[in-house]
Amino acid sequence: MQDVPLTVTRILAHGSTVHANAHVTTWTGEGAPRRRSFAEVGARATRLAHALRALGVREGDPVGTLMWNNADHVEAYLTVPSMGAVLHTLNLRLPPEQLAWIVRHAADRVVIVNGSLLPLLAPLLPHLDCVEHVVVSGPGDLSALEGCRPQVHAYDELIAGSPAESYDWPELDERQAAALCYTSGTTGDPKGVVYSHRSIYLHAMEVNAAASFGLKPGETCLPVVPMFHVNAWGLPHAAFMAGTSLLMPDRFLQPAPLAEMIESERPTVTAGVPTIWQGLLAELDAKPRDVSSLRTVVSGGSACPPSLMKAFEERHGLTLVQAWGMTETSPLGTVAHPPPGLGAEEAWPYRITQGRMPVSVEARLIGPGGETLPWDGRSAGELEVRGPWIAGAYHGGADGEPQRPEDKFSEDGWLRTGDVGTITADGFLTLTDRAKDVIKSGGEWISSVELENHLMAHPQVAEAAVVAVPDEKWGERPLAAVVLKDGSSVGYEGLRAFLSERIARWQLPERWALVPAVPKTSVGKFDKKVLRRQYADGELVVTTLG
Amino acid sequence: MQDVPLTVTRILAHGSTVHANAHVTTWTGEGAPRRRSFAEVGARATRLAHALRALGVREGDPVGTLMWNNADHVEAYLTVPSMGAVLHTLNLRLPPEQLAWIVRHAADRVVIVNGSLLPLLAPLLPHLDCVEHVVVSGPGDLSALEGCRPQVHAYDELIAGSPAESYDWPELDERQAAALCYTSGTTGDPKGVVYSHRSIYLHAMEVNAAASFGLKPGETCLPVVPMFHVNAWGLPHAAFMAGTSLLMPDRFLQPAPLAEMIESERPTVTAGVPTIWQGLLAELDAKPRDVSSLRTVVSGGSACPPSLMKAFEERHGLTLVQAWGMTETSPLGTVAHPPPGLGAEEAWPYRITQGRMPVSVEARLIGPGGETLPWDGRSAGELEVRGPWIAGAYHGGADGEPQRPEDKFSEDGWLRTGDVGTITADGFLTLTDRAKDVIKSGGEWISSVELENHLMAHPQVAEAAVVAVPDEKWGERPLAAVVLKDGSSVGYEGLRAFLSERIARWQLPERWALVPAVPKTSVGKFDKKVLRRQYADGELVVTTLG
Repeated sequence: MQDVPLTVTRILAHGSTVHANAHVTTWTGEGAPRRRSFAEVGARATRLAHALRALGVREGDPVGTLMWNNADHVEAYLTVPSMGAVLHTLNLRLPPEQLAWIVRHAADRVVIVNGSLLPLLAPLLPHLDCVEHVVVSGPGDLSALEGCRPQVHAYDELIAGSPAESYDWPELDERQAAALCYTSGTTGDPKGVVYSHRSIYLHAMEVNAAASFGLKPGETCLPVVPMFHVNAWGLPHAAFMAGTSLLMPDRFLQPAPLAEMIESERPTVTAGVPTIWQGLLAELDAKPRDVSSLRTVVSGGSACPPSLMKAFEERHGLTLVQAWGMTETSPLGTVAHPPPGLGAEEAWPYRITQGRMPVSVEARLIGPGGETLPWDGRSAGELEVRGPWIAGAYHGGADGEPQRPEDKFSEDGWLRTGDVGTITADGFLTLTDRAKDVIKSGGEWISSVELENHLMAHPQVAEAAVVAVPDEKWGERPLAAVVLKDGSSVGYEGLRAFLSERIARWQLPERWALVPAVPKTSVGKFDKKVLRRQYADGELVVTTLG
Repeated sequence: MQDVPLTVTRILAHGSTVHANAHVTTWTGEGAPRRRSFAEVGARATRLAHALRALGVREGDPVGTLMWNNADHVEAYLTVPSMGAVLHTLNLRLPPEQLAWIVRHAADRVVIVNGSLLPLLAPLLPHLDCVEHVVVSGPGDLSALEGCRPQVHAYDELIAGSPAESYDWPELDERQAAALCYTSGTTGDPKGVVYSHRSIYLHAMEVNAAASFGLKPGETCLPVVPMFHVNAWGLPHAAFMAGTSLLMPDRFLQPAPLAEMIESERPTVTAGVPTIWQGLLAELDAKPRDVSSLRTVVSGGSACPPSLMKAFEERHGLTLVQAWGMTETSPLGTVAHPPPGLGAEEAWPYRITQGRMPVSVEARLIGPGGETLPWDGRSAGELEVRGPWIAGAYHGGADGEPQRPEDKFSEDGWLRTGDVGTITADGFLTLTDRAKDVIKSGGEWISSVELENHLMAHPQVAEAAVVAVPDEKWGERPLAAVVLKDGSSVGYEGLRAFLSERIARWQLPERWALVPAVPKTSVGKFDKKVLRRQYADGELVVTTLG
């Protein structure tokens, strides 16, 4: 067989020729949206490549983008890797100091920025010695950049002033770096994940599989997931591959404009995080729109509440499909399509799982003792994954070697996801807990999340968090911290009796504490670190049942 | 990203675990069809690997299969490449001496054969010194093998007698050989095409793309195309990848059993050559069956007559989808899905093209002077293709170097398909002629097929064949050989006047001959070699118009 590499260059060439008439539509918030055909994107990519080369961008150089989801960003997505340079998408929601740390760690030489985001970038520039050029896309107040050290260019002028003749795209090795994205780790410095041409190409092929999201020519895909969030889940690449038009929301991610663009532009597929769909649901409930064009609404990034899925289906006829992944998994790890031919009720238990792995994602569950667990739907272990679009290391920065921390990669190179769950005999994954929150009790694992869900189902419990605490005999045992509803009278014994009807005896917590509220992180998740510290420091009043 | 190879081993492991409950059903022609779950196929593959290793099969060794489409053949498909050996599918329709030539050229050490095909294999064995073992699958008259040199084994006994414990599948390079298939070249010796693990994996991913055939879990695929014909168009691999059950027709490829198995087993997708669908149409017309389970009927191998497509649609509600490919292209080259949203009449012009290339198939048209032609729907050139599942050479045999004949591969390594056609601005390919039949007239090409179709549309013409003949001034000019209907009175001038209303003046043939019948090949195609020779030898009475 011919030795032809799998590259973003090929995706760009294919989309802009075979699917010349597909288009990228960017929502403007007022008046007509801007449309650009795939052929035009291809022509502009040629000019952008000439321009970036003229700015000194060479193979291997990182080019940062601080941009919303729009056509210019799509052009950068396809052009930068095709030149052999590395597209580095910057998360505009990060704290400024973290953003600056990331730009310096990646050593971005050029940053392409939306004009509306200059107030975020400009104050950082004095701290970004690596950046030589800033390219401003779309309208913005350029006075913010006055006197800054890097050279400033307007994106459209740069394109217009560059040669239209064909660019001499380099022959690339499919394993070379194409894109870079940093995880916003809750602990320690952010970690950079480097995507190769090969990984992006294979991942986009899987996105287009009928068993995944099944993009097709003539359809329209609306990526609500930001383009700085794991390559917008591969959708821009997948769309150029399949000839699927793109509807880009730009910065209009609020429920009302989203509902409007769905009604007027009639996308067939969309993807985003549950919070977005929660907002859209409320918007549609308050002011119904015609959203019947959508055949699939992909929900990922965090577990989608079943109540949200049901509400969309019952009230608006929309099917939410859960998918699971991480920055380290490109991100497509699993998709929760139920087996076909099932009635709505029968399909439900499958739809609320994380779903099934595609062929390129190999999975195993590792138990408390390091053993590989069976796929029986009951044995819970840490999920480890392996495959051509799964990270094998983190970016070492401009000068460093790739990093392979032990808590993230197994000895034989699999990614430790940090998620604990079960897999059924026919491959459906259910994640039950984070590995750091699971209670390792005498060689067995107890899911903190499962205990919490059972406790919170008690009519007198407002909130409950369960954390592991040290135990001489068992290694770890669960501590249940409970917030009771006003006026409730239930005692610990009553709660334990309630639990004992639902879980195995050895999983029942002995240690109990009443708390006024469960400590929470800035995004509203239970902050179990704080609870564990409070227990260690003796700040909690703990009752131990016999 | 992790350096994980794309291998058949992974397809086998994935299908037999994540899709453990999917199944391979083999039609038996009487009573209940035989069913085997993907998990069972996986378990039997383990035993088969142990057995073949015990027979001496090592990495790189070719293993021949002379088999119908059935579950045992699926096991060989997945097991042999996973061991690092090479699956060599033998075309049971070839003349015996060609079959023997191919087995010797590939140097097959083991041949797995269906019992019903022993009468074909047994007489060849004395001429096949390379073959050390014959494994007989299914019932058959083993007396035919009495006294033969190779050792004879029964497939099921071999499996039953082999270890069930896990096989130590080797770590493979994705570029190493996985399968081998010979083209039945009309001229010269057959040529072997070697498929790599990488090419099979990528090709199967594309088969599963929504824009191609879109196999999904829970569906059932009926490959009518023989498994010795270009890997059954990748469908067994694609099915194991997607978790799609397989319905295998075994040797029951006649219209009546096909109609029966569709009605009773309810496949959703099927694929085969137009001749099969022609037969099925007649069968369904004569004796209607419930074929409503089929969402897609893929037709490939040769151009599908539009009348056949229309008849299936109008009379039986079935959608035939054309696809184009060759043994050298794995075979998926193009698929003719019309752009969505078109009415039936508007979609028609797209459905009768060869279709669009997927991202991994790069195409170009090369004109008479060697120049690359534009995609304008008019400029006709020879189609050349490039991609990771396109052959770059032919198998050199057991001892030889790979062969790259100039007429098959361009200097820069693209495959010369030998087909002439046009491509529209949005990527739809229409093939109009074979390159060897096209008339090269003064730097322009004239399609012989187009002239023939126009001539045969004349009410008094029964058949017409057009061939290139040497011409001093133009290099080549068309000669029209015409068969008139009984009692027709039209003359050459009349036919030329008829043509002149339909084609450009410079394409009109000057040379005409009346023939009693157009010479045909053994499979009923026009044999233009014979016509050209008859012209050269002066056997035709040719009239030249002024």
